[in-house]
Amino acid sequence: MAQTVETIARALAARAEGDISLPIEGASEPQSAGPKQIALAMSEKYIPGLAQGKALAAILPEGTDWQGLGLKAAIFVARPRLAMAGLSKAFDPGPEIAPGIHPTAVIDPTAEIGAGAAIGPFVVIGRGVRIGEGARIAAHACISEDVKIGEQALVLQGVKIGARVVIGDRFIAQPGAVIGSDGFSFVTPEKSGVEEIRETLGQRDTIKEQSWTRIHSLGTVVIGDDVELGANVCIDRGTVRATMIGSGTKLDNLVHVGHNVQVGRDCLLCGQVGIAGSSRIGDRVVMGGQCGVNDNIFVGDDVIAGGATKIFTNAPAGRVLLGYPAVKMETHVEAWKNIRRLPRLFAQMAELRETVTNLTQKKGTE
Amino acid sequence: MAQTVETIARALAARAEGDISLPIEGASEPQSAGPKQIALAMSEKYIPGLAQGKALAAILPEGTDWQGLGLKAAIFVARPRLAMAGLSKAFDPGPEIAPGIHPTAVIDPTAEIGAGAAIGPFVVIGRGVRIGEGARIAAHACISEDVKIGEQALVLQGVKIGARVVIGDRFIAQPGAVIGSDGFSFVTPEKSGVEEIRETLGQRDTIKEQSWTRIHSLGTVVIGDDVELGANVCIDRGTVRATMIGSGTKLDNLVHVGHNVQVGRDCLLCGQVGIAGSSRIGDRVVMGGQCGVNDNIFVGDDVIAGGATKIFTNAPAGRVLLGYPAVKMETHVEAWKNIRRLPRLFAQMAELRETVTNLTQKKGTE
Amino acid sequence: MAQTVETIARALAARAEGDISLPIEGASEPQSAGPKQIALAMSEKYIPGLAQGKALAAILPEGTDWQGLGLKAAIFVARPRLAMAGLSKAFDPGPEIAPGIHPTAVIDPTAEIGAGAAIGPFVVIGRGVRIGEGARIAAHACISEDVKIGEQALVLQGVKIGARVVIGDRFIAQPGAVIGSDGFSFVTPEKSGVEEIRETLGQRDTIKEQSWTRIHSLGTVVIGDDVELGANVCIDRGTVRATMIGSGTKLDNLVHVGHNVQVGRDCLLCGQVGIAGSSRIGDRVVMGGQCGVNDNIFVGDDVIAGGATKIFTNAPAGRVLLGYPAVKMETHVEAWKNIRRLPRLFAQMAELRETVTNLTQKKGTE
Repeated sequence: MAQTVETIARALAARAEGDISLPIEGASEPQSAGPKQIALAMSEKYIPGLAQGKALAAILPEGTDWQGLGLKAAIFVARPRLAMAGLSKAFDPGPEIAPGIHPTAVIDPTAEIGAGAAIGPFVVIGRGVRIGEGARIAAHACISEDVKIGEQALVLQGVKIGARVVIGDRFIAQPGAVIGSDGFSFVTPEKSGVEEIRETLGQRDTIKEQSWTRIHSLGTVVIGDDVELGANVCIDRGTVRATMIGSGTKLDNLVHVGHNVQVGRDCLLCGQVGIAGSSRIGDRVVMGGQCGVNDNIFVGDDVIAGGATKIFTNAPAGRVLLGYPAVKMETHVEAWKNIRRLPRLFAQMAELRETVTNLTQKKGTE
Repeated sequence: MAQTVETIARALAARAEGDISLPIEGASEPQSAGPKQIALAMSEKYIPGLAQGKALAAILPEGTDWQGLGLKAAIFVARPRLAMAGLSKAFDPGPEIAPGIHPTAVIDPTAEIGAGAAIGPFVVIGRGVRIGEGARIAAHACISEDVKIGEQALVLQGVKIGARVVIGDRFIAQPGAVIGSDGFSFVTPEKSGVEEIRETLGQRDTIKEQSWTRIHSLGTVVIGDDVELGANVCIDRGTVRATMIGSGTKLDNLVHVGHNVQVGRDCLLCGQVGIAGSSRIGDRVVMGGQCGVNDNIFVGDDVIAGGATKIFTNAPAGRVLLGYPAVKMETHVEAWKNIRRLPRLFAQMAELRETVTNLTQKKGTE
Repeated sequence: MAQTVETIARALAARAEGDISLPIEGASEPQSAGPKQIALAMSEKYIPGLAQGKALAAILPEGTDWQGLGLKAAIFVARPRLAMAGLSKAFDPGPEIAPGIHPTAVIDPTAEIGAGAAIGPFVVIGRGVRIGEGARIAAHACISEDVKIGEQALVLQGVKIGARVVIGDRFIAQPGAVIGSDGFSFVTPEKSGVEEIRETLGQRDTIKEQSWTRIHSLGTVVIGDDVELGANVCIDRGTVRATMIGSGTKLDNLVHVGHNVQVGRDCLLCGQVGIAGSSRIGDRVVMGGQCGVNDNIFVGDDVIAGGATKIFTNAPAGRVLLGYPAVKMETHVEAWKNIRRLPRLFAQMAELRETVTNLTQKKGTE
């Protein structure tokens, strides 16, 4: 990880000027950068901070006069956040997991683990597990029987993967994530109150005693390539078929994915999103934090839902949603504008009724 | 677990026809079923799928012409989801936890563990713990001092049970569940801003500096029989008395139950529901995902709350709720219909005011 | 922990009367108190319960006639919840973690652990970690390389602390909390749909395929003194600078704090609150359960937000908020009053239109 301005520029596919052999040991915000750190001043507003810091090199917007800023070298980028991706990758030391298998790990002799693995203390790997090359598995992770994981996996502390789960390449799971817990699926011997109100939209004839019988989850979870799961995420296994997470999809911390759910490719589900059982989410769907999706519905490709949107019914592809219940974002904004105008409307109504009453009475007495 | 059409029909208390000795190794959706799997075609819409799969036997709605579908045997059920419960139980292999106590487990010598236990690697069981017969405790579970658990418990990976928690028979805890964490209870030396606005509904005289002193949780958690907790569920212990979860109640993933809460019998709390401290939930209450219950309130028996309903005040028994703030489901549906009609109302008001102004002016000039 | 009425009164800085040498082994609600327990009857409504219980001593509101209640001793308090803090601290046995380092713990030889530590089974402590005096670290906790923790820490079962996190004195982390998971930060090579709708408030020209490139988290998490984290809380590390949690702040179960977030001092964030990336929360902010804060916004000092408030835009200091979207609490209450009055408004409008139409027609036919 010994870097210079030149190696960083190459990693970013960006143009560098000045003393490109300058050694760089890390990245920092401009105002707190030391002389061996590259300052992140990718947009205009960060440039004044350079004067307070000690950086000799910086990442700058195209066209910046780096020499005038007293720098010895500069890298120019067009799309700052994209540059940040390359730069952060170059400098991320990653979690320290010693190469090889820690002596305390309990690994079933039938498990096959690819070359180059680093497996931490107290890891448990079950019967028939197959893990690809280059896996890094941190302390206290549990990988149950017959799980398959692709190459270059990073499974962090205390992640629990249930039996028969299948995962693609370059998988990342943050600490505490649970994949393959049993689905939340229960049935009453007779029609339940919930089934009744779904048919009647809230009317209930008589309320009966009822208790719940468990429907076991025979299915599993199938996860594509390049998927990342946040800390303490929970993904339930399917009842008969598998719960699916498409390639390229990223789940933030504390996201809940119910049984039988199908999430498409390249989706982003932000913190604390919940998807109820058997719903289907298209490709490239983005949900802000705390969104909720009802069970057994469909959310089309490219839907974007603002924070805490609660989606109760099918959403067509490309729709931008907000609110509880979810409506088009513009409809929601308009609705609350209208709600805030209500006091004036009530006043106008009162005034108008008085005027009209006067008119009518005058009429009557004419 | 060697099954035939006959043994499955018996497990479902259902009627079978045809070659009931046919061996069955698993269940599948009709279109992907192999010749040794029973096809799940319990409602009409799944029947066309049988032609694409290879199943020789199927579970069908009463009256279906199974011979005409080319099957060798059939089982007939009246309530498909109930059949699914029996069927899934018959075929669920369950998690593999080797019988006996894994040599790496750390078990206090004073703990009493019933016959037939299977205890996985790195499990920790504390002083004075008592666990009934037939317990299955998976890797990394932690059971603290003086906990009591009934018979046939299934405690999955990384579940943490705090001191003195008492749990009934047939308990199931999915991975990562935490039972008996300390309550979130803090007090300021003088009246806090929160106490003030609760009394004044939002008015604040002066804002004072304040810091928080912890109220420790001396109580515990008491859980009835046949309770199931989802992955990463959190249940706090009570302050003085116990937090209670009634028999037959099921909690989905990431549900939060605050200190002193009383949840009744046979409730379903879906994913990410949160119940704030000291509230009481009646029997047979069903809450959709992401519902929230305010602290110190009461939700009556048989209440059903739709997804993400936020319950701020007491809810009478049998009420069907929706919305933020929670109102009767029909009221909520009506409210949003009315909100969507507001643009027309504004237009009518503008038009009417103009008409009336004209009338008034005409009047004046008559 | 052998207590008497006298020692308890002293711990509460409260006045005692009667036989203050009476030994006390615990605290209880009045109706279930035994003769060696002190009854908690700090407000009038609990006093009748004393007759059902067997307590010889009670904590009472000032001025209560304790002798008339048949008690042998009494402690008088002015602010009951504050008394409860002192009392519960006096009687909390805390979790049992044996003094010293459990032989199964895996501790890097370069780690420095202060005097008086109690470290449980299967704990993992990484390279260069420094932990202050009096630490109690329960089973399965993971503390990664270069973490610093102050004095008197209580780190409970299965807590995972990522590399380079810095934590102050008297830290408490309930089971399963994750500190220092990677931030949820991704970028598309070209402008994404999310960036587009943020600029256009929902309008989208063309929808493009897009996939996500990871921005690694180089920053860490810095936590002040006297911070408590609930069970399964998740706090992400910063991208370049640190995510910060100020001294005295308490987070309840399942709270999510995104990357780069700055939370001030003495805040309370109740169960399942979520703070999206790069937002700043002032000092003494209180958020009810399930509140959400948008990314990149600012919530001022002393803001109080009711349960499930969704804060989308900057909130000025001292504001009391409620609703989705968050508005002043009084505005929200008023809004829903108005919404409930809409049916009457629609009826009035219909009636008025008819009256005016009649007036107009009469006019026309005069």
